[in-house]
Amino acid sequence: MNHGPRAAARNRAALVTAAREIYAQYGLDAPLSAIARRAGVGQGVLYRHFPDRAAVATAVLEENVRQVEKAAATEDLTFAGVLGVLTWHLTESAAFIGLLHADGAGRSGIRAYALALSERVERALRGHLPDGHRLGAADDLMLAVAMVSGAVTGPTREERERRALAAWRLLVVEVGPVRPFEG
Amino acid sequence: MNHGPRAAARNRAALVTAAREIYAQYGLDAPLSAIARRAGVGQGVLYRHFPDRAAVATAVLEENVRQVEKAAATEDLTFAGVLGVLTWHLTESAAFIGLLHADGAGRSGIRAYALALSERVERALRGHLPDGHRLGAADDLMLAVAMVSGAVTGPTREERERRALAAWRLLVVEVGPVRPFEG
Repeated sequence: MNHGPRAAARNRAALVTAAREIYAQYGLDAPLSAIARRAGVGQGVLYRHFPDRAAVATAVLEENVRQVEKAAATEDLTFAGVLGVLTWHLTESAAFIGLLHADGAGRSGIRAYALALSERVERALRGHLPDGHRLGAADDLMLAVAMVSGAVTGPTREERERRALAAWRLLVVEVGPVRPFEG
Repeated sequence: MNHGPRAAARNRAALVTAAREIYAQYGLDAPLSAIARRAGVGQGVLYRHFPDRAAVATAVLEENVRQVEKAAATEDLTFAGVLGVLTWHLTESAAFIGLLHADGAGRSGIRAYALALSERVERALRGHLPDGHRLGAADDLMLAVAMVSGAVTGPTREERERRALAAWRLLVVEVGPVRPFEG
């Protein structure tokens, strides 16, 4: 048996991947035991890497947020393009929806983390917001994101993408291709 | 002690009122014990009236839906007027938000009830939808309701109303006064 740092890093990565999949299916309230089982490790190993539920959720959401930030950092991506990447993460992750739809995240006791992550998403988007855009005033940008998050339901990613795009269309906001960011 | 039908009806009414208040504060995942405590009855009495969590939630949501239906049945209320009553119930009840924001309701195991109630809300609204309204096409009506539901967060009813009205404004949909229906 190898309990060295390499095995630890592998276990951590497996746990984050498992958590992302479980959250996508069941939301942030999924039991931690299901995450450990999916990752093929014992619950003791899970607790060694993540002291509590909030730590697991944050590790997963951190990935979503970082992808949106990377997309936003790309000079030649338009606001619509960044929204496309954001929308991909909304359709892919029930947990990410919960984050941007503030009260859902609050229930799982990760409100402070959620707020900080949500503010990073807002900064990433706002940096690309063109002058005179219809979401330019006050809270409208993140209000629109919460509205689209509220609409993104459905059993398959395709159905969730269809609803997300219909929601942006109702908001009269142009969205680029819905896709992960491949820097 | 009086265990007759009158006391039973009183207990049931007290439980529904308590559940409405508890759900408004904590959402549909609030423990049943909190509802019994707020109503001032034992958990045994709660279970006599409501065999499970779904039965309690349905009794509360039934009230919200019936109010919207009553408003819609009023000949002289416009679509905007009915939306105003719907919006009042959204700002007053976290449970009602969960209902119209389909996945939230699903998690509490009341999906079938939720679907039937949500369809009643849709019928009530659709009956008043003017020809050529921008929410007239296909799924747009309930998509818009889900979007506004997603935006209605915040610690006070006033804040939730402010956000709901901002959401309808972003959708370019006129809403009448936000108020309960007083038939």
